[in-house]
Amino acid sequence: MKVTVSRKAHFNAAHRLYNNDWTDARNAKIFGKCANPNFHGHNYELIISVKGEIHPETGFVMDMKVLKQLIHEEIEEQFDHKNLNEEVAEFKTLNPTAENISVVIWQKLRSKISAELELTVTLYETPRNFVTYTGE
Amino acid sequence: MKVTVSRKAHFNAAHRLYNNDWTDARNAKIFGKCANPNFHGHNYELIISVKGEIHPETGFVMDMKVLKQLIHEEIEEQFDHKNLNEEVAEFKTLNPTAENISVVIWQKLRSKISAELELTVTLYETPRNFVTYTGE
Amino acid sequence: MKVTVSRKAHFNAAHRLYNNDWTDARNAKIFGKCANPNFHGHNYELIISVKGEIHPETGFVMDMKVLKQLIHEEIEEQFDHKNLNEEVAEFKTLNPTAENISVVIWQKLRSKISAELELTVTLYETPRNFVTYTGE
Amino acid sequence: MKVTVSRKAHFNAAHRLYNNDWTDARNAKIFGKCANPNFHGHNYELIISVKGEIHPETGFVMDMKVLKQLIHEEIEEQFDHKNLNEEVAEFKTLNPTAENISVVIWQKLRSKISAELELTVTLYETPRNFVTYTGE
Amino acid sequence: MKVTVSRKAHFNAAHRLYNNDWTDARNAKIFGKCANPNFHGHNYELIISVKGEIHPETGFVMDMKVLKQLIHEEIEEQFDHKNLNEEVAEFKTLNPTAENISVVIWQKLRSKISAELELTVTLYETPRNFVTYTGE
Amino acid sequence: MKVTVSRKAHFNAAHRLYNNDWTDARNAKIFGKCANPNFHGHNYELIISVKGEIHPETGFVMDMKVLKQLIHEEIEEQFDHKNLNEEVAEFKTLNPTAENISVVIWQKLRSKISAELELTVTLYETPRNFVTYTGE
Repeated sequence: MKVTVSRKAHFNAAHRLYNNDWTDARNAKIFGKCANPNFHGHNYELIISVKGEIHPETGFVMDMKVLKQLIHEEIEEQFDHKNLNEEVAEFKTLNPTAENISVVIWQKLRSKISAELELTVTLYETPRNFVTYTGE
Repeated sequence: MKVTVSRKAHFNAAHRLYNNDWTDARNAKIFGKCANPNFHGHNYELIISVKGEIHPETGFVMDMKVLKQLIHEEIEEQFDHKNLNEEVAEFKTLNPTAENISVVIWQKLRSKISAELELTVTLYETPRNFVTYTGE
Repeated sequence: MKVTVSRKAHFNAAHRLYNNDWTDARNAKIFGKCANPNFHGHNYELIISVKGEIHPETGFVMDMKVLKQLIHEEIEEQFDHKNLNEEVAEFKTLNPTAENISVVIWQKLRSKISAELELTVTLYETPRNFVTYTGE
Repeated sequence: MKVTVSRKAHFNAAHRLYNNDWTDARNAKIFGKCANPNFHGHNYELIISVKGEIHPETGFVMDMKVLKQLIHEEIEEQFDHKNLNEEVAEFKTLNPTAENISVVIWQKLRSKISAELELTVTLYETPRNFVTYTGE
Repeated sequence: MKVTVSRKAHFNAAHRLYNNDWTDARNAKIFGKCANPNFHGHNYELIISVKGEIHPETGFVMDMKVLKQLIHEEIEEQFDHKNLNEEVAEFKTLNPTAENISVVIWQKLRSKISAELELTVTLYETPRNFVTYTGE
Repeated sequence: MKVTVSRKAHFNAAHRLYNNDWTDARNAKIFGKCANPNFHGHNYELIISVKGEIHPETGFVMDMKVLKQLIHEEIEEQFDHKNLNEEVAEFKTLNPTAENISVVIWQKLRSKISAELELTVTLYETPRNFVTYTGE
């Protein structure tokens, strides 16, 4: 029996939307106030979902204490109270849209979680905007 | 890499559940207090989800500003503070259940969004009742 | 020791904002789309708060089962799936704004709850608009 | 047209995580404070989702009043204000992890819902931990 | 300028409502299923509010990191994953109603927080039931 | 009859906690990661509450459309997608803690709202941290 287990986490970060290959004018035109060179920020709410067989001895798909700790080390400690553009290596050249952040989080967690488990990342940038990435 | 981006919106509307082909007695029997001829209403909470490739230049699947504006024009302006049965053309003959409203919203948005993007509509009729339509 | 105990409840209703003493034109000007003669509606979320001494034997300020039942009988059964303007006596002549609804709810409950207990009504008309009435 | 309709419900229960085949020491090591022999508890929030064709006469996939009543009888009355380990037959020998509870709920509802409808159970053990079971 | 700062926390615990001075029959009659001798449980959500002057140098009424740590040590570590009746000294003889729990939390924190600051405890027993104690 | 009416709003901004009169080392010691010189950010959720008599003709304490527009012009347009330290005049010399932001918002709105109405500002910096200022 395959069950999906999900764990919520969160981090607060600054960012701006910016394509290094474009002029500032084009960035301002496409990204509007999200391109503000002084940055703005969000409380990112994160849901990490892992799908797999229930282990017959523990009744767990994955120990939530382990998943919580993994999210803490790999994501929260790397992103929380950071400026994503300036301080997170992946976004030096990659525009930190919610879409791209969800892919980076997925990639950082994928190698740390058993390959038998399917991984999905859901990221709320605001209470009204969110994205989901399943590795597809 | 395919990501799903979602945007929340909302509208407040009156409706009643009613099948024009039935007697009032049968409507009352099947739909109970939802068939009240004087109408009742809801704060409908809407989530529009769009799935597709991340555009390499923008980092967007779809510009959320564009999606927000599209939902505003096509759905919120048509449905908000309206009586769905009396004032929305689609429900003159179609019973405005949450299921049917979600299908109508999907159809209204489908032609306005690139055919390469998958579209899903989630509609909360109350905080405890909601429906999802993917076009299947 | 005085504690405030609160219980959430909800009802779905249709209404329109309308002052019987005004012309339709004036109603439309002041209340905008809220004056729509075909009505619109809301999921009203209600919080009833009661403040008083903790009873030494029960540990209760008021038995929540009793409060829940009282709200059900006096408010939910009277207002749920109703058209407030057309079907609730108090709003035949009183404009059903959130402010006025909260006062009516307070008045309906006040006589049913021990006079030693302070009563507060909080009413969410939408997730973003709410009112509070304490009897002041 | 296939739509998924979902209904939220809830129950409050005590439990402990415990594998009868293990020593107490091993239970304590694997499950930590969740193995507390005096039990702890949760407000379980439940979402039951049913997917199928919209019935052309009613506009319903399934009458929500029927689904609400079914959840009440089969799940809430069996689990609410209970000690899952001690008082619910299925967990006499099965460890009441969120994963296993979701499977038990799915099995209890599956036979009561038309076989043409797909069934999904989502169970929040806490606001930050939840599981989903689709019968896979 | 006096500002109120609030911090949310949470703990999961088992309890039953029980007055030691009453017969089991009377406990069952008054507390209903809440008196279940096998216990039930809740995800208690806690809001600790502290009101006082803004410190001109820090801009803080109270450092949230300090408040968070204080709640963790004094409340979460004492109550989380515990059976309140069996394992928390204060409830050996005091019925663990939400009202009484809020008073106990207030008393445990009062002496740890500067006397110049006003303290309020809000405790959600379920998403629909909550209590507030200000020390009155 | 005096009722309090409340309206929710929100803005996303970057900030850092920093006292200009202190050394960087002291800022880092007192404010921890909140002093990050590259900034971090939040989705600030704002609740503006106004208390006063219900106007007998409109049934309003204050027209919510007016309050919504006022919050938009005075707060959202000034703060949204901004770096509070760098781009908002009030925080050039004032540390943008949640406490200080709530006071600044209160001061910006106070002169725009009838003096007969009491004004309260509640500001969520994160879903778990919030502050309230009443002008006291």
